[in-house]
Amino acid sequence: MTLLAQPQSMHFAEPLALRSGAALGGYDLAYETYGTLNADRSNAVLVCHALNASHHVAGSYAGQPKSEGWWDSMIGPGKPVDTDRFFVIGVNNLGSCFGSTGPMHTNPATGRAWGADFPVVTVEDWVDAQARLLDRLGIDRLAAVLGGSLGGMQALSWTLQYPQRVAHAAVIASAPNLTAENIAFNEVARRAIVTDPDFHGGHFYDHGVVPKRGLRIARMVGHITYLSDDVMNAKFGRQLRDGIDLRYTTQDIEFQIESYLRHQGDKFSEYFDANTYLLITRALDYFDPARGHGGNLSKALAAATARFLLVSFTTDWRFSPARSREIVKALLDNRRSVTYAEVDAPHGHDAFLLDDARYHAVVRAWFGRIAQELAHV
Amino acid sequence: MTLLAQPQSMHFAEPLALRSGAALGGYDLAYETYGTLNADRSNAVLVCHALNASHHVAGSYAGQPKSEGWWDSMIGPGKPVDTDRFFVIGVNNLGSCFGSTGPMHTNPATGRAWGADFPVVTVEDWVDAQARLLDRLGIDRLAAVLGGSLGGMQALSWTLQYPQRVAHAAVIASAPNLTAENIAFNEVARRAIVTDPDFHGGHFYDHGVVPKRGLRIARMVGHITYLSDDVMNAKFGRQLRDGIDLRYTTQDIEFQIESYLRHQGDKFSEYFDANTYLLITRALDYFDPARGHGGNLSKALAAATARFLLVSFTTDWRFSPARSREIVKALLDNRRSVTYAEVDAPHGHDAFLLDDARYHAVVRAWFGRIAQELAHV
Repeated sequence: MTLLAQPQSMHFAEPLALRSGAALGGYDLAYETYGTLNADRSNAVLVCHALNASHHVAGSYAGQPKSEGWWDSMIGPGKPVDTDRFFVIGVNNLGSCFGSTGPMHTNPATGRAWGADFPVVTVEDWVDAQARLLDRLGIDRLAAVLGGSLGGMQALSWTLQYPQRVAHAAVIASAPNLTAENIAFNEVARRAIVTDPDFHGGHFYDHGVVPKRGLRIARMVGHITYLSDDVMNAKFGRQLRDGIDLRYTTQDIEFQIESYLRHQGDKFSEYFDANTYLLITRALDYFDPARGHGGNLSKALAAATARFLLVSFTTDWRFSPARSREIVKALLDNRRSVTYAEVDAPHGHDAFLLDDARYHAVVRAWFGRIAQELAHV
Repeated sequence: MTLLAQPQSMHFAEPLALRSGAALGGYDLAYETYGTLNADRSNAVLVCHALNASHHVAGSYAGQPKSEGWWDSMIGPGKPVDTDRFFVIGVNNLGSCFGSTGPMHTNPATGRAWGADFPVVTVEDWVDAQARLLDRLGIDRLAAVLGGSLGGMQALSWTLQYPQRVAHAAVIASAPNLTAENIAFNEVARRAIVTDPDFHGGHFYDHGVVPKRGLRIARMVGHITYLSDDVMNAKFGRQLRDGIDLRYTTQDIEFQIESYLRHQGDKFSEYFDANTYLLITRALDYFDPARGHGGNLSKALAAATARFLLVSFTTDWRFSPARSREIVKALLDNRRSVTYAEVDAPHGHDAFLLDDARYHAVVRAWFGRIAQELAHV
């Protein structure tokens, strides 16, 4: 059965106070829902997205069979997160470029596009905005919040900011904060964008250009870190584009991996907003719930009361299993309920988006138990 | 005792045939020597350099006490490669920007700087040029050839191209070829340089500009891959530049690691040539002695007769121990003499340049044995 997706939008007139001290006035959130909210409004699952994804989590748009949501393998009728049992909500974050209010929209203070003046948003700010959306949808308490990578950080933050509103949290391929190396890769991407002459200090919309050079480099760097060395060797290895003949060129493509990366960079630069890239990588950099607790993650997670699922992937070197284990340990220090699966998968960080049987079996079992509990209330 | 270094230059009038099919006409090689060539000319050690290094391997220049060579901790009087016993030669590779003929020099065919028209050079071409330098210095056979990283590739290639001219080869923190991920990082760096509007198709010299934006990004990416995640966390972690206060900015520096990387990028863009960066990363990409043997490294290394030292470092993820072990295995398949040390060091790929006691002890012992053998001939 095909799940039909329908994008929706909600306007919020009341300002949102941000962690930076700034406030965002009226704003819109783009979202989608799948499945049916039950009578006692207890079966809602919120899905938080990562860097370049959106509210379009599952299903396809009418008449567009190839428009599957980014987590369509995970979410839908009969899938691990079963929309026959759960009411699933996907929401696009503030500052994104896929429908919610972001840098390309009009700054009411100037009448021009926000550009680089869009306020810096944090994971905590996103969670606050998501909570307001739930208020408007009449959902007091989530059966579960679910996210991978940066989405996992939002799921974790939900359990700390609104512990009474989250029964379960699934934190997948995530981390309690970024390492110095993670921040360093983000900084390379940001410098590539910001130093592109077409960036114009973030106000490129006014100039009718896009800092494509910088976006391409940003995406190429990012893409390398999403894959494992092994999967890159298996997929591309040292294959030449022209078969067996070397061309001896420094600027043209010689190896298949170069062709692939350039293609990824080109595609990305066509659809992704440069200011959004800066905002979202910064939200990643900033997330660090232990910061307010002297770096003690166990103290930071004492506020969480949800039951947790943590999943990591053996070849993920961007958000390695060791980082998930830090979260598991901190939760266990607080005697919280935690299910942890370390999945032996070759695909690096990208594994969390892929259809891996063992990974999906874990998520299916965990959500199945939640559905059973809901049925027995 | 301070070792005094003195840069020298040798002109070669006869053209050098390159692997690409092109030929380089008259050219110069910059080099330095340390220690004294013995009477039977049997104590010469050639040191091959890696990406951004030069012929200035050891010692300091007169009146410039802070001008130590890049491997000064390893090479000098009483050091692991003891210049009281060996005659050590450092040579700058063709295409470099530190004295040997390169893209910033005049192309005799046009009367302008070579720029991006400088012929593509390979590890094998460099070794051929180095062999000619040895001819002119009157050295038939090297006591040893020594190199780390890309320099290790040259050392390995020496044993295949001129087996009868190399008694020993030390291949440190190196690999039999680059992985797809290695090539991918090189390609990011090259794209950053080539798409910088100041690159001008490689002829930026004519425009009085330098593609500094691209060089900065290239260096930042490179630098991340030279360090280990652990050492970056130990050195920078999540420290803020302003102490404890977040500034909430996407374009300004927030974390110490950002400050460090920008500084590295800025410094590099002041002294390194963009066309050289393209050439040298390509030489890395191309090196693959097994290519001519159906990918069989054991067959490829059958030509080598030297006695080998291989060293790798546990936290080096750019040229991991597994890659050194491939070389060791291929040599053992051919029943060659191999000493292999896998050094437990935290510094990632950079470890090969650092003064690590266990690492230096291994190199010292290995060269000590060579010196003893020379003394007993």
